[in-house]
Amino acid sequence: MSQIPPSDDGIVVSAPGKVILHGEHAVVYGKRALAASLNLRTFLRITSNSSHQVSLRLPDIGVSVTWSLGELQETFTLPFCDPMNPVPPSADLLAQVKKFAGIESDTVNTKQLAVVTFLYLFLSISATHKNIPSLTIEVASNLPTGAGLGSSAAFSTCLASSLLQHRRLTSVALQVDKSNTATWSDKDIKLINQWAFIGEKVIHGNPSGIDNSVSTYGGALNFQAGNITPIDRVPQLRILLLNTKVPRSTKFMVAGVKDRYNKYPEIIGPVLDSIEGISQCCERIFTEMDKGTPTQEHYDTLKDLIDINQNHLRTLGVSHPALERVCHVTQSHGLYSKLTGAGGGGCAFTLVPPGTCEDVIGNIRQELKELGYDCWETTMGGPGVLQHLSLDGTFPIPALFPRN
Amino acid sequence: MSQIPPSDDGIVVSAPGKVILHGEHAVVYGKRALAASLNLRTFLRITSNSSHQVSLRLPDIGVSVTWSLGELQETFTLPFCDPMNPVPPSADLLAQVKKFAGIESDTVNTKQLAVVTFLYLFLSISATHKNIPSLTIEVASNLPTGAGLGSSAAFSTCLASSLLQHRRLTSVALQVDKSNTATWSDKDIKLINQWAFIGEKVIHGNPSGIDNSVSTYGGALNFQAGNITPIDRVPQLRILLLNTKVPRSTKFMVAGVKDRYNKYPEIIGPVLDSIEGISQCCERIFTEMDKGTPTQEHYDTLKDLIDINQNHLRTLGVSHPALERVCHVTQSHGLYSKLTGAGGGGCAFTLVPPGTCEDVIGNIRQELKELGYDCWETTMGGPGVLQHLSLDGTFPIPALFPRN
Repeated sequence: MSQIPPSDDGIVVSAPGKVILHGEHAVVYGKRALAASLNLRTFLRITSNSSHQVSLRLPDIGVSVTWSLGELQETFTLPFCDPMNPVPPSADLLAQVKKFAGIESDTVNTKQLAVVTFLYLFLSISATHKNIPSLTIEVASNLPTGAGLGSSAAFSTCLASSLLQHRRLTSVALQVDKSNTATWSDKDIKLINQWAFIGEKVIHGNPSGIDNSVSTYGGALNFQAGNITPIDRVPQLRILLLNTKVPRSTKFMVAGVKDRYNKYPEIIGPVLDSIEGISQCCERIFTEMDKGTPTQEHYDTLKDLIDINQNHLRTLGVSHPALERVCHVTQSHGLYSKLTGAGGGGCAFTLVPPGTCEDVIGNIRQELKELGYDCWETTMGGPGVLQHLSLDGTFPIPALFPRN
Repeated sequence: MSQIPPSDDGIVVSAPGKVILHGEHAVVYGKRALAASLNLRTFLRITSNSSHQVSLRLPDIGVSVTWSLGELQETFTLPFCDPMNPVPPSADLLAQVKKFAGIESDTVNTKQLAVVTFLYLFLSISATHKNIPSLTIEVASNLPTGAGLGSSAAFSTCLASSLLQHRRLTSVALQVDKSNTATWSDKDIKLINQWAFIGEKVIHGNPSGIDNSVSTYGGALNFQAGNITPIDRVPQLRILLLNTKVPRSTKFMVAGVKDRYNKYPEIIGPVLDSIEGISQCCERIFTEMDKGTPTQEHYDTLKDLIDINQNHLRTLGVSHPALERVCHVTQSHGLYSKLTGAGGGGCAFTLVPPGTCEDVIGNIRQELKELGYDCWETTMGGPGVLQHLSLDGTFPIPALFPRN
């Protein structure tokens, strides 16, 4: 993540990534999935300028674009919609935005999709019939892109919340902690999530809505048969997040599981039932941990669930030697890991229960780095989108960044 | 296995060990288990002598005992029972036999149990009111004892078949192949199995009956809720059999699975269902392989089933690092393994599909030997108890012995 020089005004927001805690793949078969926020965050700053231009800067992925407001006003019939009633772009409008930005209609390029998403959300939320604000938008993230950690949703959530807030369509209300961060009312949060979902649609076409919901609401969510339900009071769990950097294809992995299910329905069907049981048990443990003091036994159960689910994902054929090595290394130190997301590469996480010796964590990190993996110490279950109120010093606020 | 010098007369029989192909542990919860014969065999030779003594020699486990026929006749009221209607010993009679042999009543010592079993079967089958034959019984085995491979059942089956045959209560009838081996009619086989089961009772107290049935019938058996059903026409499958030599306790492992089941019924219940699905699928594949020509796809399926079941056994908590190393080594060469039996140590087997390069097998054997494991190349699904008709050369017949 690059550092952007300090600025003396503007709105700064941040939104988290996500991990699938349990239920990846099983969700395709109508079972529940539990997704949790990942406290690797994307930060976004909006500052006003007087250049009659709008600038988008995403130095992490090498994007820096500027458009003149006059050009935008000439090209588009504004506003696109009522910003209080979010709608996705029609195919025609999306094509028009892409054409304006000089982007192929069927692009899957991250940079290009980020630009299109920005333009649609900016012109939908910030522009009126007569006025487009002159803004600079800067984005910095700790989330790797394309690793299944919800980096695009974190970007969309940051865009939605900051643009709505900048136009005073929402109002920061609730002080959440002593780190000068604030959040919004339930009504405002719902609107942010709706716009973030539309951002996801621009990027992914037909997203589940889980990534933007986790990024907006934080904590953990239950996702089943298209319904997203926040889970009340989720403990913040300390984890190691590992990126094997092995490229993966969600589509390919989902198809592989389908083949295996079709070949062995009487074997794979019960495995999916067992994964549903894992998710149910995990939700129950979260409730217990919230009601009383979390105990060693709770953490032992969470470890068991992670280990069993990893076995099941192996059975579904979606593990990978690189993921197995992660499990092997952490298990040799008494900690349990599972892949998260589609598998076949990508990321895994390791639960770090309270009282884990710091030497153990250091040794694991060292061994995994020697294997070439990226490794972050972070938490899951933390807050969703936040506004950062005090802005002395550089942006992004370094203290908030758990560095890789 | 020690070699016993050649002899010019007598009856030679052999009986196989067993492996649990699928369904260990699940069988405790009413699911089916598939057991298959393991072509590591125990050989037994009976020869008549004129010393008015009966001698039992098991050089592999260091047993060599001789009793005078007069002493036996003085001690016991003979016959114990009608040899055509096998019954287990009463507690009193068992105590009397043990006392005669100088063995503690609650022994679990392999040598002592072998001696007691021999005495009960010998005096039940071979002795009449007036006569006890003067015999020498020599036993040699390729089966390790206490490794869950059914060595005691193979011993009991050899005893039952040879003693019945020596007294002409059965008659060798069916030539089975060109290696001068023969087998018995269904009715005789049933009688042999009944006596072998009684041998198992003397040794184990309350055996399932699966080990003696596999040793007697060969091939593979389906065992569910106490019912044993032979599976028609099982392909002989080439395997590597690995003994990790890690001591294991069946009772302890079964209790561990019970604890896990009680703690996570909604997770472990479906895993047991999935194991049932594996056993069903395996039986179906055996039927298909018997109906047509076995194909690569059949072997691929058998590999999948082995790999998935090993994942499930890991989930049940009955694997062990030594067993995982076996799986890891064989998988790195493209072959799949699972533990067999109670787990927590003990043995694993690896399917070796036709066309597997001999170098691969050599490399696997080498790596596993370096890890300190015993490794046999053998088959499962082969013949049950056999009589060996031609006896030129040493006993046991070296060509029949796949050496460790």
